[in-house]
Amino acid sequence: MIRAAAERLAPVVRRTPLLSSPFLDEIAGRRVFVKAENLQHTGSFKFRGGWSALSGMDAKKRAGGVIAYSSGNHAQGVALAAARHGVQAVIVMPDDSPALKIANTRALGAEVVLYDRLNDVREEIGSRIAADRGLVLVKPYDEPLVIAGQGTVGLEIAAQARDEGIGAAEVLVNCGGGGLTAGIALALEAEAPEMLVRTCEPAGFDDAARSLAAGRIVANATQGGSICDAIVTPEPGAITFPVMQRLCGAGLVVTDAEALQAMALAFQRLKIVLEPGGAVSLAAALFQGDGIGADTVIAVATGGNVDAAIFARALETLA
Amino acid sequence: MIRAAAERLAPVVRRTPLLSSPFLDEIAGRRVFVKAENLQHTGSFKFRGGWSALSGMDAKKRAGGVIAYSSGNHAQGVALAAARHGVQAVIVMPDDSPALKIANTRALGAEVVLYDRLNDVREEIGSRIAADRGLVLVKPYDEPLVIAGQGTVGLEIAAQARDEGIGAAEVLVNCGGGGLTAGIALALEAEAPEMLVRTCEPAGFDDAARSLAAGRIVANATQGGSICDAIVTPEPGAITFPVMQRLCGAGLVVTDAEALQAMALAFQRLKIVLEPGGAVSLAAALFQGDGIGADTVIAVATGGNVDAAIFARALETLA
Repeated sequence: MIRAAAERLAPVVRRTPLLSSPFLDEIAGRRVFVKAENLQHTGSFKFRGGWSALSGMDAKKRAGGVIAYSSGNHAQGVALAAARHGVQAVIVMPDDSPALKIANTRALGAEVVLYDRLNDVREEIGSRIAADRGLVLVKPYDEPLVIAGQGTVGLEIAAQARDEGIGAAEVLVNCGGGGLTAGIALALEAEAPEMLVRTCEPAGFDDAARSLAAGRIVANATQGGSICDAIVTPEPGAITFPVMQRLCGAGLVVTDAEALQAMALAFQRLKIVLEPGGAVSLAAALFQGDGIGADTVIAVATGGNVDAAIFARALETLA
Repeated sequence: MIRAAAERLAPVVRRTPLLSSPFLDEIAGRRVFVKAENLQHTGSFKFRGGWSALSGMDAKKRAGGVIAYSSGNHAQGVALAAARHGVQAVIVMPDDSPALKIANTRALGAEVVLYDRLNDVREEIGSRIAADRGLVLVKPYDEPLVIAGQGTVGLEIAAQARDEGIGAAEVLVNCGGGGLTAGIALALEAEAPEMLVRTCEPAGFDDAARSLAAGRIVANATQGGSICDAIVTPEPGAITFPVMQRLCGAGLVVTDAEALQAMALAFQRLKIVLEPGGAVSLAAALFQGDGIGADTVIAVATGGNVDAAIFARALETLA
């Protein structure tokens, strides 16, 4: 399914570069590569899953329009994929999403429905609107076509690692519901089995790390209050978790302050813009090295949709 | 020479992506592509010329070490190329260079000699040290091997434009001494003659635009006071100017404020970090469209080595 998704994605997706800097290697004490998915269309890897879902579903069903719930990156990915397929998209977003993400989703032609992250259940809102208006729900991670689309990042990593002469490595992935993590893990199982995928999360929202440790799905205590909005989800997915359990190492956890510092170092050393949730994997590479075994890490930088005020806060860590 | 340089560069250079955003197309009123050379090793295209010069010169001469003068990007490019060839590098830099550029050049193993941009002549300082210590001078632009290295950007643009289905286009290049401009123009003359190269400069330091208009080399009135430090040079080069004269359209000129706004839009829409002098071409694409003829422009984003304080100033334009 991942290879089939890669074929559907080939004409539209951006093959994002693998970046590095000797200055980052020095901080980490090992070789660090960054897969810059912030440079993907819509500013995050989510365009891959959105395109995979839209291009892979029955054309008749698709013609009636799609609906998605998302804090903003899946929203934009689905909105752009829908626009380019010429079909309607409704996106259900928390009302505390970054302003840029809400504005972009609308600018991409989608209808945005806001909800209260702490008191509403987005799955219920999504299901209701989908039923009322005959829309196909595109889930953000617990959906095979979406996982397959995100898995194309893993195929690219395997190919680029071969080009760079990278063998054994740990691949650090920012983990929300686990769609990207599971997709990359499945791709690398086939293409680069010497690599080990590790989930990366912000402290307090480390449901994947705790679930992997417990051997069963464990939920987060709360849904609000992290600057890493892109990867705050209630718990790992029912489809993604068994994949992660089978293929991933123990989860890594960083603080919000470390995520901000990683954003600043990505600015300074790689010349890329990361959002907090997109910088957690790089933060783990740079500041949680004691928990990493390999001499080489590949940190997947998952998104760059960040408001200027938060980015300015990150830059202050350089002063 | 450009094709030969491309072969020497292939194992070490980063093939930088061609980025785009529908939001930028809308501002410009035409299709805008950005060749992201800020993602090149050392954060600017200058690594190409540095590597081309070091790898292309006589090995015996190279072994004695090299010297370069630069406000910082050529400095880092030559420093890294020298370090990877295992030879000494001395870099002559203005004492008002961005702190990051001075620090990085030292961190890459080079010896940095500072001078006063307004009162000293860097060519004289460079020649004196070169003679005293038996170093080979690597000029920043008026040197065929350097022009050939920078020209590899043009080969990549031609290939990437074919992949994207781009035909006729104007290629906007940030122009200091003209090494990159001349190199790209020569590469495109052979590989994509339907493209027209245009120089881009900050107001008050538009020696290339005025020289092209006058049909002879005209110097800038002053050397200090622009935030676009990377592309402030006294005048076009003796080798580069005739090439520009033969192959380039009229020069485009932007204000510092437009450069800062382009940096902010590159942050917001492309998720890349540009320095002021690296954003002038994108600023021309976005804000000087009346002077552009083609439906498609390719803006070469030449560098991203910017101090956090200047970047924060750029972000303020989004508020």
